Amino acid sequence: MINPVLHRQRFGLSLLFTLVLPLLAQANEPLPSWNDGATKKSIIEFVQAVTEQGSKHFVKPAERIAVFDNDGTLWGEQPAYFELLFAFDEVKRTAAQHPEWKTTQPFKAVLENDHAALAAAGTEGLLKIVGATHSGMTTEAFDDYVKTWLSQARHPKTGKPYTEMIFQPMLEMLDYLRSQNFKTYIVSGGDTGFMRAFAEKIYGIPPEQVIGTTFITTFQFKDGKASILRTPKLAHNDDGAGKPVSIDAVIGRRPILAFGNSDGDLQMLQWTAAGPGKRLMGLVHHTDGKREWAYDRQSHIGRLDMALDEAKTRGWTVVDMASDWRRVYPFDPPSTEQVQ
Amino acid sequence: MINPVLHRQRFGLSLLFTLVLPLLAQANEPLPSWNDGATKKSIIEFVQAVTEQGSKHFVKPAERIAVFDNDGTLWGEQPAYFELLFAFDEVKRTAAQHPEWKTTQPFKAVLENDHAALAAAGTEGLLKIVGATHSGMTTEAFDDYVKTWLSQARHPKTGKPYTEMIFQPMLEMLDYLRSQNFKTYIVSGGDTGFMRAFAEKIYGIPPEQVIGTTFITTFQFKDGKASILRTPKLAHNDDGAGKPVSIDAVIGRRPILAFGNSDGDLQMLQWTAAGPGKRLMGLVHHTDGKREWAYDRQSHIGRLDMALDEAKTRGWTVVDMASDWRRVYPFDPPSTEQVQ
Repeated sequence: MINPVLHRQRFGLSLLFTLVLPLLAQANEPLPSWNDGATKKSIIEFVQAVTEQGSKHFVKPAERIAVFDNDGTLWGEQPAYFELLFAFDEVKRTAAQHPEWKTTQPFKAVLENDHAALAAAGTEGLLKIVGATHSGMTTEAFDDYVKTWLSQARHPKTGKPYTEMIFQPMLEMLDYLRSQNFKTYIVSGGDTGFMRAFAEKIYGIPPEQVIGTTFITTFQFKDGKASILRTPKLAHNDDGAGKPVSIDAVIGRRPILAFGNSDGDLQMLQWTAAGPGKRLMGLVHHTDGKREWAYDRQSHIGRLDMALDEAKTRGWTVVDMASDWRRVYPFDPPSTEQVQ
Repeated sequence: MINPVLHRQRFGLSLLFTLVLPLLAQANEPLPSWNDGATKKSIIEFVQAVTEQGSKHFVKPAERIAVFDNDGTLWGEQPAYFELLFAFDEVKRTAAQHPEWKTTQPFKAVLENDHAALAAAGTEGLLKIVGATHSGMTTEAFDDYVKTWLSQARHPKTGKPYTEMIFQPMLEMLDYLRSQNFKTYIVSGGDTGFMRAFAEKIYGIPPEQVIGTTFITTFQFKDGKASILRTPKLAHNDDGAGKPVSIDAVIGRRPILAFGNSDGDLQMLQWTAAGPGKRLMGLVHHTDGKREWAYDRQSHIGRLDMALDEAKTRGWTVVDMASDWRRVYPFDPPSTEQVQ
């Protein structure tokens, strides 16, 4: 580590001020992948208002809770929720242990890549697949399965690992908030254990700040060995009204910032908005069919309809991905930048 | 705030070294209310082993999770769990809104201070009382009720507010751990909302680090107003095997230190002990009938029987309150100190 005092003495004050400080200022400019405009301004103005000493909107660091949906807000969700693609791959990986799946729907459909049969199985079928692939092992074994899959699986469109299909502007927002002593949480419909397997590494969000859908687990102590087993029984569905409920149950404080991208985030935003003082409610609007995907009111995945209306009525921040984001993914070369 | 550079210039270096540094050293001596001996030594040696750079037992700060039971571990639990005394007082406070309680057990017993009828109602009766007094209001209103009660109620034996019936040596342990970058959690059988109403103020443990028994809550959005309502339906009983389950669900990391005082903490200690590397499992043994209470294997409250056996077998730290603690409560005058 460089001792700043020695460093200053060696190079002289003038050099420090002419060379180093401007570089630092540039490095500290928040949200570099956001185009200048009303959206970026609304985020920076909010953060300054609640963090500057003496501001009438000042919020104590301990109360600077920021919550983010994951699918479609921090990483992609097309052509299907990534966790569902994990579940399909797990069915194939473990098929030998379940010979009955060859003749039982919806598992047969997964094994045969039969999209029509899978569609016919509907949400109930998908839940069966998630239940079967997310249970019957310890929480630590499940964590291993997810990590192994993430290290090998590739996104069907980009060919990138799913952990790189994350939104660079949102990573910068997480960093910016944490630099201002916000505590950043994920509050999302994904399985908590699934999200914990990557959230710390790719978002800098530790396991204890990941809130999601949960299944009943049981404690076992056998032959001096303690473990926690996952069962397929749903404990909490962290979507819609389930989000403010889990925020209250796990955090016990009302967030002052909430970001989502779909109607499943509406109640989380309403709950955030209902508190006293200044708040920021935001939605990522997928408007960029060229660099990412364009979808909203009619989409089966990440439908954004009622929440978009309420955002417009109440003046919430709506991110127009196509025009507000200079870059979408960390791996995007500068040439993918949109012309303003 | 004193600017340390100016301060040093004004008073001179010699004064700093002769006067200030020894005072700082004394102030930093951990666990002043613990008598010197094997128990205090086991705590300090554990903390040093997992925090000193280069130690073979070194644990990264992010993984320094420490969990504490509350009733009987951080504060008292005699002559009855304090939360139960709150529930009895709430029955009396709200009796006018429930005229049927005058003739319905177990509420009638509470209103008439009929200890025999209350005992006859058993655990089921107590759960009814807790359910009735802990539901039907928003989580924020419940927080207000608990805070109001805590500000007015007094312990039947000491005449002190319940928030002063806390164990000074354990407060010092919490402080010591946090000074070494541990994250301190409560994992206890009390209602999460009840404990959050005081945990930050008296223990320095923020709401998001309080894990307890929970009841189902529901989100309501009416006339543009968002709220979360408490129902009497149990969601999670945070006792026994429920403790490692909630630790895994909420924290998602295995603690490296766990402290309890009863058989209800056994599984939490087993789960903590089952991880790799150095760990500290501890029990507060209530052996001090003079300054506090003496109870263990036969007690209906905080029964310590199987966990005491397992602690002895496995070499866990057992705190002998009478001989290990120089002082019990923060309000104890020095004259209450035990003679060694």
